[in-house]
Amino acid sequence: MLEGTMTSTTEITHLTFDVLVDLLRKIFVRHGVSETTAAILADNCARAERDGSFSHGIFRVPGYISTLKSGWVDGKAQPVIEDDGAALIRVDARNGFTLAASALARPTLLERAREQGVGVLAIRNSHHFSALWPDVEPFADEGLVALSFVNSMAVVVPPGGKKAIFGTNPVAFAAPRAGQPPYVFDQSSSAIANGDVQIAAREGHSLREGAGVDRDGNPTTDPRAVLDGGALLPFGGYKGASIALMVEILAAALTGGNFSREVDWSQHPGAQTPCTGQLFIVIDPARGGNGHFAERVAEICDLTREAGQERLPSDRRFRTRAETARTGIPIKAKDMALLQELVSE
Amino acid sequence: MLEGTMTSTTEITHLTFDVLVDLLRKIFVRHGVSETTAAILADNCARAERDGSFSHGIFRVPGYISTLKSGWVDGKAQPVIEDDGAALIRVDARNGFTLAASALARPTLLERAREQGVGVLAIRNSHHFSALWPDVEPFADEGLVALSFVNSMAVVVPPGGKKAIFGTNPVAFAAPRAGQPPYVFDQSSSAIANGDVQIAAREGHSLREGAGVDRDGNPTTDPRAVLDGGALLPFGGYKGASIALMVEILAAALTGGNFSREVDWSQHPGAQTPCTGQLFIVIDPARGGNGHFAERVAEICDLTREAGQERLPSDRRFRTRAETARTGIPIKAKDMALLQELVSE
Repeated sequence: MLEGTMTSTTEITHLTFDVLVDLLRKIFVRHGVSETTAAILADNCARAERDGSFSHGIFRVPGYISTLKSGWVDGKAQPVIEDDGAALIRVDARNGFTLAASALARPTLLERAREQGVGVLAIRNSHHFSALWPDVEPFADEGLVALSFVNSMAVVVPPGGKKAIFGTNPVAFAAPRAGQPPYVFDQSSSAIANGDVQIAAREGHSLREGAGVDRDGNPTTDPRAVLDGGALLPFGGYKGASIALMVEILAAALTGGNFSREVDWSQHPGAQTPCTGQLFIVIDPARGGNGHFAERVAEICDLTREAGQERLPSDRRFRTRAETARTGIPIKAKDMALLQELVSE
Repeated sequence: MLEGTMTSTTEITHLTFDVLVDLLRKIFVRHGVSETTAAILADNCARAERDGSFSHGIFRVPGYISTLKSGWVDGKAQPVIEDDGAALIRVDARNGFTLAASALARPTLLERAREQGVGVLAIRNSHHFSALWPDVEPFADEGLVALSFVNSMAVVVPPGGKKAIFGTNPVAFAAPRAGQPPYVFDQSSSAIANGDVQIAAREGHSLREGAGVDRDGNPTTDPRAVLDGGALLPFGGYKGASIALMVEILAAALTGGNFSREVDWSQHPGAQTPCTGQLFIVIDPARGGNGHFAERVAEICDLTREAGQERLPSDRRFRTRAETARTGIPIKAKDMALLQELVSE
């Protein structure tokens, strides 16, 4: 039995966070990722699994490995920071993982946000394959407000359209909240996340109405029809489409990365990580005098609950995080077998 | 006949932009607004009317006047810039119009965005009663990317809720586009804009399904039921609600302004302009090397059209603007009579 395993049945193994990180790190290293980047990817993936963000947890590991094997991404890439001392910093991820680039630039971004009241980080030539909330939440833990935008590969048609042009293009936001975990959301600009379509297809569930179209542009609730040449629709009609387009502009046009439509991995069978760009905007709410920011955020969140919204975006994740801190992170037998296989491959 | 009137029938008068601005400016001055601020409000209101944004054009003038008469807003307020040289600038609008504060701070904001690659402007104690696109579009004309957020008064319930807590909380975005007018959107976080509910009520139209609830929290398509103790719903369900809450955090908690729920004009009958806050984020896309930004924005907008989206958010406004530049701005007889009455009151 693996050290750190807390309980085990034939169905579910419970791992501590550190044990899961270590296992994932070894898997990434074994498949060509540098030690530094492997530790970053493993930490990120384990956080998602720990918090119940299953579509971005262990579920993603085969996609990472398949992409590394295809030669599409450089797991050993050394990102290069382009810093002229301004509040806007650029990073060329050099065809590596975005998380490696953002981790490298984070201290500079924090320094500029403190110095100037705001910092912007523009990353390009970068592969983002993870949830977006882990990218913004740590800034809120430092008392800062963070916004992030990342585009992906073309799987979303604009309203009335037949050709997929946008990525699922999530927007994530985090703000510190007094006496409670930060307010964090991470939401795709599509009616449903691509990871959830993959899970629905795997588990044989239908999608809700309005989620997507088939290869001919007709509405469908069949996840396989969406994945097989079909496409997703934006959330909220034209308004969601405006946001999806804004994300292409901020994450790709502004950073110098690829548009979702330009991601072309046809020469790399097995590739799954879109090579695009990511933008961060980090603001220091205390700059120029505002000592009550975190209290005010708590106030508006509490008002929202009182008004009748049962659950705020981050509630379920923080609850799951607290649970798994007690019980360990539950891993299904087949996922455990997969991880064991990948680490010894 | 007023000088600058281009054509006239019993139904419609056509005014040049400058003549409409001058008429509006005189109306604002006559009702207690300083010369400087009156010119700013008049220009803003005329731009909305010129571009066919009727819910924020002449339609708003009686609300401005009624509010000025109520003593709720200070039309002569002198905004105070709080600038310590950082990229984040604050302005206390001192219970005046937001537009006066943003106009005063604009040169500093532009300077910081050029110097640092990004500038943030946080305005508080400010009355915003206009469309949001005129606030961001001029930055795109300078080659910059702009985002803005403003909260208003509580007219939106969260999903599943019965108590209005959010404003319509628009988000506006602008980016320069090579060879074409900028890409600009201005969209409320509600399923429909409050101004459009007012117009529907006035003209006796129904709202579309999902737009709002009545005073008991039940869905309704009757604009009068929404205005009479009912509320709007966010667009796109939970995702729109997340954005509405983010706007409260950015425009109020971060700036030091009121939440929409805190706007209390009960002692000022006739007041209609919410006193809250506004946040601007302005980024220089050329900072650190990106000479092709405007071309890239044009490219993704063109791709979106080619994919089948017939109209991008700013298309109709720019078309109307071109038309009214030729024909003059059409003013209905009853609106013309109203303006004439207000200027000579």
